[in-house]
Amino acid sequence: MEPILNFAQLITHLKTLNHRKRIAVVCANDPNTEYAIGRALEEGFAEFLMIGDSTILENYPILKQYPEHVKIIHIENPDEAAREAVRIVREGGADILMKGIINTDNLLHAILDKEKGLLPKGKILTHLAVMEIPSYHKLLFFSDAAVIPRPTLQQRIEMIWYAICTCRHFGIEQPRIALIHCTEKVSAKFPHSLDYVNIVELAEAGEFGNVIIDGPLDVRTSCEQASGDIKGIASPINGQADVLIFPNIESANTFYKSVSLFAEAEMAGTLQGPICPVVLPSRSDSGLSKYYSIAMACLQVSEDCKCREKVYQEHLS
Amino acid sequence: MEPILNFAQLITHLKTLNHRKRIAVVCANDPNTEYAIGRALEEGFAEFLMIGDSTILENYPILKQYPEHVKIIHIENPDEAAREAVRIVREGGADILMKGIINTDNLLHAILDKEKGLLPKGKILTHLAVMEIPSYHKLLFFSDAAVIPRPTLQQRIEMIWYAICTCRHFGIEQPRIALIHCTEKVSAKFPHSLDYVNIVELAEAGEFGNVIIDGPLDVRTSCEQASGDIKGIASPINGQADVLIFPNIESANTFYKSVSLFAEAEMAGTLQGPICPVVLPSRSDSGLSKYYSIAMACLQVSEDCKCREKVYQEHLS
Repeated sequence: MEPILNFAQLITHLKTLNHRKRIAVVCANDPNTEYAIGRALEEGFAEFLMIGDSTILENYPILKQYPEHVKIIHIENPDEAAREAVRIVREGGADILMKGIINTDNLLHAILDKEKGLLPKGKILTHLAVMEIPSYHKLLFFSDAAVIPRPTLQQRIEMIWYAICTCRHFGIEQPRIALIHCTEKVSAKFPHSLDYVNIVELAEAGEFGNVIIDGPLDVRTSCEQASGDIKGIASPINGQADVLIFPNIESANTFYKSVSLFAEAEMAGTLQGPICPVVLPSRSDSGLSKYYSIAMACLQVSEDCKCREKVYQEHLS
Repeated sequence: MEPILNFAQLITHLKTLNHRKRIAVVCANDPNTEYAIGRALEEGFAEFLMIGDSTILENYPILKQYPEHVKIIHIENPDEAAREAVRIVREGGADILMKGIINTDNLLHAILDKEKGLLPKGKILTHLAVMEIPSYHKLLFFSDAAVIPRPTLQQRIEMIWYAICTCRHFGIEQPRIALIHCTEKVSAKFPHSLDYVNIVELAEAGEFGNVIIDGPLDVRTSCEQASGDIKGIASPINGQADVLIFPNIESANTFYKSVSLFAEAEMAGTLQGPICPVVLPSRSDSGLSKYYSIAMACLQVSEDCKCREKVYQEHLS
């Protein structure tokens, strides 16, 4: 598989699969969500189970065009709608869960329910996103702009695994993963820079399989070869990062908000950790961004990622 | 004075002042610093005292064109050169201090020397920068991408004062200052968001004079009106921020590196706190960025900012 370099190629790839993924949407009561669902229906890679207030949902003209691919379940109370959507996913009735305009905390509450939720015991919940930046030559994945404020070492390792699996889905054979800091210097003043040393050692020992991991590096040195050259930094990333792992939620969020606003980048993102990808857009995300997030989730469920198991098997053999 | 909206207007304004500021440069041994000095000499708003290895400095052709505005002091040892430059500034022989390719820590060591340095007792040292982003309609100031990892409340208040003074130098009568976080929600999980509540209260009580301060806000809501509208956030910043105060150094650094790389923004920056502005570029900064930093420093010394004293006098009267 050739690497997918932008969102247009992602859509083309999904269309070749010729199979609609089933998405359960909670409270799709806003025009941007409607737009995203409409485009996914038109392009033919998703079908929808709309759980929410049917008096609103039935007014969407686009849904009437695809009666065989849209089902509406009327539940007025958003918390109940969330619980019902989670139940349907658990029982195998949908491949993907998506948030409409329900409050994020309320949907997370249903996802994280220990008895009836979607997060297997011991799994961490984290957000993985990807940007198409007109001034960068490929897609750029990053984590975590939305869920974990200050990841622990173990959480960072899990975040990296999710990023590797998703890169494989996008056809990236050897993902280049940059561990972001303000400088390339390791310092006890910044505990995450010490975590980075551990992670780079694990990567060099083959723990993550066929990947390149380096850090600490700043965003510029990670994504522009000339910056490293000027600073005299010889990094195997070589200014060609596929993934940026940020030190904290504030820096990841700043990255995404700044680049989307000032560099006209488009973003897609899903929650990782639950038994299925969860599309959890922020209220101010564009319709296009919600649509690309649906596409990202559909790619993630299109095939199981076995790269982690593969690395462990190689270790054992 | 009309507000200065971009770096071209800054240069035009400095030329109208018709007065060269005196800049002491430590170890200007790199092409980007040479370029910056050359342009400032040509435009006529600065003259230079070059302290370093004269066998290198004397080779710069541009310097020979302005013999009356360039003086070279030969000191081979960089630490000695830094101490001598600081001594000259203390004794009134220069208005601005600038770093060439000496290691930042070594120059800071001379600046922070308790007996012979440049930082008055009780003052904090912080970095204030400004970006010209092609997709934003005015200059955007931000702090602190370089010095203070996690500012305390008192340090944030000082950072805001430095930003206000510099905005006044740039002709901005009522600076709009956004206190950056990943969301507009205040939470004890994020101590800086609690600091922001304090700061907004101080601002509303008039402590900072004629300014608009609001937060927590994310970068997008601070700089784009439509984002706030979609989220239903009514902020007096109204998507028109002049200044972004970041929660920590990682997020400020991410902002500057991402926007300069992906949105083709140019940056200028100076250290605040010492008795004079200090131009302390990073090694990978472009020649243009070093030139604009010189221009920013020249504007900062062009007139004393009395805005802080003015507010206190108003409080007393």
